[in-house]
Amino acid sequence: MTIADADPVSIGQHLLGIEELSAEQITSILDLAEHYRETTLRGAEKLDDLRGIVVANLFFEPSTRTRTSFNLAARRIGADTVDFSASGSSLSKGETFVDTALTIEAMGVDLVVCRHRSPGAPHMLASHLKAGVLNAGDGTHEHPTQALLDILTIRQRREIQGLTVALVGDIRHSRVARSNIHGLLKLGARVIVCGPATLIPRTITQMGVEAAYDLDEILPEVDCVNLLRVQFERQRGAFFPSIEEYAHLFGMTAERIQRAKDGLLVLAPGPINRGVELTPEVADGPHSLILNQVTNGLFVRMACLSKLAQERRRARNSN
Amino acid sequence: MTIADADPVSIGQHLLGIEELSAEQITSILDLAEHYRETTLRGAEKLDDLRGIVVANLFFEPSTRTRTSFNLAARRIGADTVDFSASGSSLSKGETFVDTALTIEAMGVDLVVCRHRSPGAPHMLASHLKAGVLNAGDGTHEHPTQALLDILTIRQRREIQGLTVALVGDIRHSRVARSNIHGLLKLGARVIVCGPATLIPRTITQMGVEAAYDLDEILPEVDCVNLLRVQFERQRGAFFPSIEEYAHLFGMTAERIQRAKDGLLVLAPGPINRGVELTPEVADGPHSLILNQVTNGLFVRMACLSKLAQERRRARNSN
Amino acid sequence: MTIADADPVSIGQHLLGIEELSAEQITSILDLAEHYRETTLRGAEKLDDLRGIVVANLFFEPSTRTRTSFNLAARRIGADTVDFSASGSSLSKGETFVDTALTIEAMGVDLVVCRHRSPGAPHMLASHLKAGVLNAGDGTHEHPTQALLDILTIRQRREIQGLTVALVGDIRHSRVARSNIHGLLKLGARVIVCGPATLIPRTITQMGVEAAYDLDEILPEVDCVNLLRVQFERQRGAFFPSIEEYAHLFGMTAERIQRAKDGLLVLAPGPINRGVELTPEVADGPHSLILNQVTNGLFVRMACLSKLAQERRRARNSN
Repeated sequence: MTIADADPVSIGQHLLGIEELSAEQITSILDLAEHYRETTLRGAEKLDDLRGIVVANLFFEPSTRTRTSFNLAARRIGADTVDFSASGSSLSKGETFVDTALTIEAMGVDLVVCRHRSPGAPHMLASHLKAGVLNAGDGTHEHPTQALLDILTIRQRREIQGLTVALVGDIRHSRVARSNIHGLLKLGARVIVCGPATLIPRTITQMGVEAAYDLDEILPEVDCVNLLRVQFERQRGAFFPSIEEYAHLFGMTAERIQRAKDGLLVLAPGPINRGVELTPEVADGPHSLILNQVTNGLFVRMACLSKLAQERRRARNSN
Repeated sequence: MTIADADPVSIGQHLLGIEELSAEQITSILDLAEHYRETTLRGAEKLDDLRGIVVANLFFEPSTRTRTSFNLAARRIGADTVDFSASGSSLSKGETFVDTALTIEAMGVDLVVCRHRSPGAPHMLASHLKAGVLNAGDGTHEHPTQALLDILTIRQRREIQGLTVALVGDIRHSRVARSNIHGLLKLGARVIVCGPATLIPRTITQMGVEAAYDLDEILPEVDCVNLLRVQFERQRGAFFPSIEEYAHLFGMTAERIQRAKDGLLVLAPGPINRGVELTPEVADGPHSLILNQVTNGLFVRMACLSKLAQERRRARNSN
Repeated sequence: MTIADADPVSIGQHLLGIEELSAEQITSILDLAEHYRETTLRGAEKLDDLRGIVVANLFFEPSTRTRTSFNLAARRIGADTVDFSASGSSLSKGETFVDTALTIEAMGVDLVVCRHRSPGAPHMLASHLKAGVLNAGDGTHEHPTQALLDILTIRQRREIQGLTVALVGDIRHSRVARSNIHGLLKLGARVIVCGPATLIPRTITQMGVEAAYDLDEILPEVDCVNLLRVQFERQRGAFFPSIEEYAHLFGMTAERIQRAKDGLLVLAPGPINRGVELTPEVADGPHSLILNQVTNGLFVRMACLSKLAQERRRARNSN
């Protein structure tokens, strides 16, 4: 298979987090994603690399976007997909999480894409399943494919090594922030986390990042801002006084872009709240890479699924 | 590609309504649908015309029938499909309608089939997307594929030119009626709308139709009745005194069929309410074309998707 | 087609219950399932036997497991699938059950897999449709593919003829029990039903089985126990005093296994309630065939769908 030949770097049986990956492994995923992008742009509409591979989406949190992105990615490289959602599943009949996963695996599933509100849930699955497990977000812990697509989007514009990236917003509850931090640092970027003091854990600097509480202060230094979503549906406590104040202090506006470096890259892992994390003007403006992120999400997920499927086939053949 | 060769009439990038189509364009869709029907009857079980094309169903109103019909139509000509529903989507996280659509498009979707309670919603999408947009029902405005399948079903039995068709029931709230009126008039039919006075807008005759309030009076003149569904779930106000009275005045019965022209065609865009718009005897009788409509729905949607996919490919190749 | 050649035994147009099948028909399904298992194990990842066949899942009771198993089975042999669920369908708009099915059939569906809470619902469909109907569970009546997969799982370890099988638990409400009884008796097994007296109908022995109320008494005689699920979500009345007492009297424990025959086979149609029908130790132990059942479910459903599709093609070609 040409892909296996061109891509000798294994990322292991599962993809649970960016923390566990080496810079070489991250780069190999990004390179394969780029390969899929080029193949698609050259007009190849559908590939058969994963023919016979069954991918199950096991989502215990609602997510149309990520689930659809995984579905489309899987099918674009020839895999078959099957969706599980928490509601209506056997879980409501009293079955345990692991039993549900074992049952799905026994139906011949090769790869399980799992989203769960509990940090570590995919790791628990991985310890019980022969199928490959891909973490699509586990609580506040990691969301590896989101970080990979963010980094790919940046890498298409700038070299990551030496770049200064600001992650802005709710760092405390953000698995996207954690995964980005791991990935960006491994690839040699400087990372600043910036947001209301209540939303930045004191211990975060131990990860190797800088903490800032004033966006305007750091703005002249950064090459890229990644505007984390204000998660109205998650935020129970009152971590900031009001949406208006948040938007005033941390929202990206045309005026702030003027005061930033030329060619500032603006990322936002959607769904965005227009007028909160950024103004419509910025969202739709030339600095915004929001839709590039969505498109790259497809290619990154094709790459991750492809790599895990290779491992899976290797394991099956050696049985 | 044989289909593109055999079918030189473009319907444009989007299919938003019958109002915007010419008689020639309508006829070209019906002809292509007929071509697909014959291909299917000759035993061709699955076609590859749309291989590599991704069709997204973006339904903001529940609809199992129409969504399934589009899904089956798309897959029967080789397209890949992905379903979005309003519940569970990013819309509940505060994302705007257009951002949702842009995100879906950025995932590599070629055609968006959209149903929405607001008239004009698909037009708004069309103005923002490069993907082709197909209106699957927008509020009380239009439902083009339903009209096309109704007209195809009639055309398989009678020449449309000069035919008298009665649309019976709730004209006021019916996008099916509006789309049928546009299509039938363009193809040269005489159209009578008939129902309780409260459910027939006074301005309707400006569209070129006749209005009648007594079904028994017009019955001897009509070749075809299309019995619009009484939409219990939509009807908030009290537009008619009771279901019993509606059934008595406007329901199609065996007795009414006897007083009608020989060979009266009975259409009803389901789901039907047996005993309301028509009796079970009529629904299952020889005049009823209800199930033919469903089957034609598949072929009409194959034709529409195929035509839009051709435009989409043309646009992509010229980029 | 090689499968049709190798498999001359027809099971008819529909699969509504095990009661209607002969031993020869049952065996032919199991043999075909075994054929599919071997084909899969030899590495054939996807077959094209049912290319062009459309399978509709018409589930009026929630069931992720069975629906997914049918979906994966259908697609593994090349069929296209479409899911209907009760919520959101036209049924909520007032359409009748049969009209919904007729509509689905008119969309070109070849096989309808139906689950419904009312016994006989699939039989009603079968009497109205030209499509093949496969009963995926109708109330307390039958669940043929579950029985077939249970029996296949046993047959992979022991000859059925002369074997003693105990069905343990809620016999009264169990379609799984009824289908197993029919199948096992036809293949020559001895069947004991065992559970609280309130959950064993007095008339059950007329089916040809023995009734027992004390698991420990019959345990030394049985070769296989099939532990029916305690259906918390179904059980309205109070048929047994408490879950604890049920688990104490009828739950399979390591201690009970020690007192049973060597090589006791432990089956349980999931989703299991760990600590109720069986302890985690037993569920994950060497006697448990629970995950084999799930895997065999895939092959049995491939076999049933394949046989019905052959009939369907035969009927279409002779039209």
